[in-house]
Amino acid sequence: MALDPKRTINELKELRELTSDENGAQRVAWTDTWLNARSWFAEKIRVLPVEHHLDAAGNRWVTLPGNSERALLLGGHLDSVPNGGWLDGSLGALTSLEILRRFAEEYRGNPPVTVRMVDWADEEGARFGRSLLGSSAFAGTHSIAADRVRKDKDGIAMEDALRRCGVEIDRFPEAGQERKHASAYLELHIEQGPVLERMELPLAVVLGTKGVERHTVTFYGEEAHSGSTPMNVRRDALAAAAKLALEIRSIAGKHADAVCTMGSVKTFPGIVTAVVGRCETTLDQRDLDPGVLATMYQEAQEVSRRFAAEEKCTVEWSRIWNIEPVPFHPALIEMCQQAVRETARQAPLLPSGPLHDAAEVARAGIPTVMMFVQSLRGISHNKVEDTSEEHLELAVTALDRLAQKTVSWMEGQAR
Amino acid sequence: MALDPKRTINELKELRELTSDENGAQRVAWTDTWLNARSWFAEKIRVLPVEHHLDAAGNRWVTLPGNSERALLLGGHLDSVPNGGWLDGSLGALTSLEILRRFAEEYRGNPPVTVRMVDWADEEGARFGRSLLGSSAFAGTHSIAADRVRKDKDGIAMEDALRRCGVEIDRFPEAGQERKHASAYLELHIEQGPVLERMELPLAVVLGTKGVERHTVTFYGEEAHSGSTPMNVRRDALAAAAKLALEIRSIAGKHADAVCTMGSVKTFPGIVTAVVGRCETTLDQRDLDPGVLATMYQEAQEVSRRFAAEEKCTVEWSRIWNIEPVPFHPALIEMCQQAVRETARQAPLLPSGPLHDAAEVARAGIPTVMMFVQSLRGISHNKVEDTSEEHLELAVTALDRLAQKTVSWMEGQAR
Repeated sequence: MALDPKRTINELKELRELTSDENGAQRVAWTDTWLNARSWFAEKIRVLPVEHHLDAAGNRWVTLPGNSERALLLGGHLDSVPNGGWLDGSLGALTSLEILRRFAEEYRGNPPVTVRMVDWADEEGARFGRSLLGSSAFAGTHSIAADRVRKDKDGIAMEDALRRCGVEIDRFPEAGQERKHASAYLELHIEQGPVLERMELPLAVVLGTKGVERHTVTFYGEEAHSGSTPMNVRRDALAAAAKLALEIRSIAGKHADAVCTMGSVKTFPGIVTAVVGRCETTLDQRDLDPGVLATMYQEAQEVSRRFAAEEKCTVEWSRIWNIEPVPFHPALIEMCQQAVRETARQAPLLPSGPLHDAAEVARAGIPTVMMFVQSLRGISHNKVEDTSEEHLELAVTALDRLAQKTVSWMEGQAR
Repeated sequence: MALDPKRTINELKELRELTSDENGAQRVAWTDTWLNARSWFAEKIRVLPVEHHLDAAGNRWVTLPGNSERALLLGGHLDSVPNGGWLDGSLGALTSLEILRRFAEEYRGNPPVTVRMVDWADEEGARFGRSLLGSSAFAGTHSIAADRVRKDKDGIAMEDALRRCGVEIDRFPEAGQERKHASAYLELHIEQGPVLERMELPLAVVLGTKGVERHTVTFYGEEAHSGSTPMNVRRDALAAAAKLALEIRSIAGKHADAVCTMGSVKTFPGIVTAVVGRCETTLDQRDLDPGVLATMYQEAQEVSRRFAAEEKCTVEWSRIWNIEPVPFHPALIEMCQQAVRETARQAPLLPSGPLHDAAEVARAGIPTVMMFVQSLRGISHNKVEDTSEEHLELAVTALDRLAQKTVSWMEGQAR
């Protein structure tokens, strides 16, 4: 049974059929639809000569034992955002399955190293706002105290939703046992951006995941009557925020791959007849270079203070979240370039703006690399998310080539 | 019994005591607290030689019959916004009462013209979002079909809330009967802005109420992932809106008293990790000169289209509401200047940015003027709304002088 990329595409369609409605994929982690997707997946592996189990964080591990305990890990995630697409996460999971099948067949159940695949639990964090949940438990970067009390929009506590799926949040640290013997981690994902489509290339090698600085930036002015307050005496918090919304583009523009985004603006009192007294904005800044990220963060703070002063306002910053850039492993990047070149001739190198479970694995010190396949129109987290079938087939083939190269590399290292 | 401005201040404090809580005045129209305020007021007029009744829109009319049926009207409103101040509306109502008392006493129940005061119903529109309700019924500019179905935040229909207070919305047109013999209308109000305080003057003559163009301006770009979408391919609806938020200040700045305000900005999807795909803003533009107002409206439309194009977005405008400028009566403005000069030496002329019931009365063709008294810190619609007692006394005195001058003017006109 050789590698069959068409089978992967058919399985992706089967999963879409099973877990989508007219608004898109509904495989939100810790819901019945997600459990259905996982049961469907469990059926797929039943026929393989593998051991499988859920770890203490709900990640599913499927293990094809090899001559060495040293393990090559392949991963993805079956969970989706609400109204999501058919490829985000599941492409990685089902490609991992296909490659596992190929190893099982080719080596008659006895590959030179152990090959494992993982379906991470709750990559998206769609229900409780905590992404990379399962992989952070694996990596030992979990945050149980903060996460336990998170509630979904219906007020259900995260702790209770997990328990319903057989996962005890206090046992998360035990998931770290899965790191044992892990020697490399590979993940295929859709790009979720427009770069490859604009380059007219199917595949890319991912250099790492960008670091993120994520803040709430609030400007305080003075609420005033829109009719009776002359323009020159206003302290308009929106004006200061508007200046920042425009200036962050110059701040990002100084660096090749950097991005700065103001995604949310809230105005208070937020009525047509009042000058804005308070304006809450969010700022998301990303780059692969920690120095660039730090510079952008500092510049945004400086200009926000200048704009506040110009508008006779004040400004406060509050960090929502941050993560350092996570560069992937040089040797794996090199092999990934070879695998992509052999499959699609050109192998562009891209940083990943979105975070992925691979970032958590890499932070745990396990050599890691990701491969991207082109997203049509750069759209994801939406039912129109798509990739051409031709490119999907190339992606499965290229990741399999990378997996084989990685096994050889692991054998070489062991010597 | 001569005019007693201190009594007016004491009555304002009495009313505050009766109808405020720790967050300010709660005399929201069509609520129990408002009905309490009106009952308290009815007690005040019980001892006067007057006829009084509620009209079909719930406005209370108190009539001191004179030798002529031609009527001088004095007005105010007892209703407030939630968490409002002690002066907005009630200063006008209680000053009108005091002047009515003075006329009753001085002319022993027989003034040369009829003197009427009105407590307008629901000036603020705080509960159903429809301001100037009672005065629009009086003026015949009511909008019954649109208003009937308005709901408050608890889902109670306007029609039902009015009925509970004895007002049938279908009978609104009958309130127009009160226009009969009305020959002049005077209204005293707090400025609700910072201009008089900055001029260090207590009183102003109001030239009219500014016209208002009030629109929703929505920019449409493309929602995109904040991590994976390079800066140069974004279609950021917020960027276009931010440019407009800043440019409206230049548009207003070309004209002396013009104002333009972006009071509300809503971002969609409005999350930290997405470029804004749709940005809904509100624009409120005001000026006393219809030509200036039209120019500002046109300029805002033009720049919004330019900014949308620059950001590869589109823009749509939707009118929320508009009203033409309402200039007050030249002869009454002249007399108001005299009365203010006699009382406080200087008589600055100001347009009113906020709307007032006086605008509806003037639109009905009744000669109208308003007088403003200084607002401390320019704040209203808030429990900290305040005016010095010295200035309140000057205001009552000046309006009474204006009322007397107006009576003489009416007598002169009748000859």
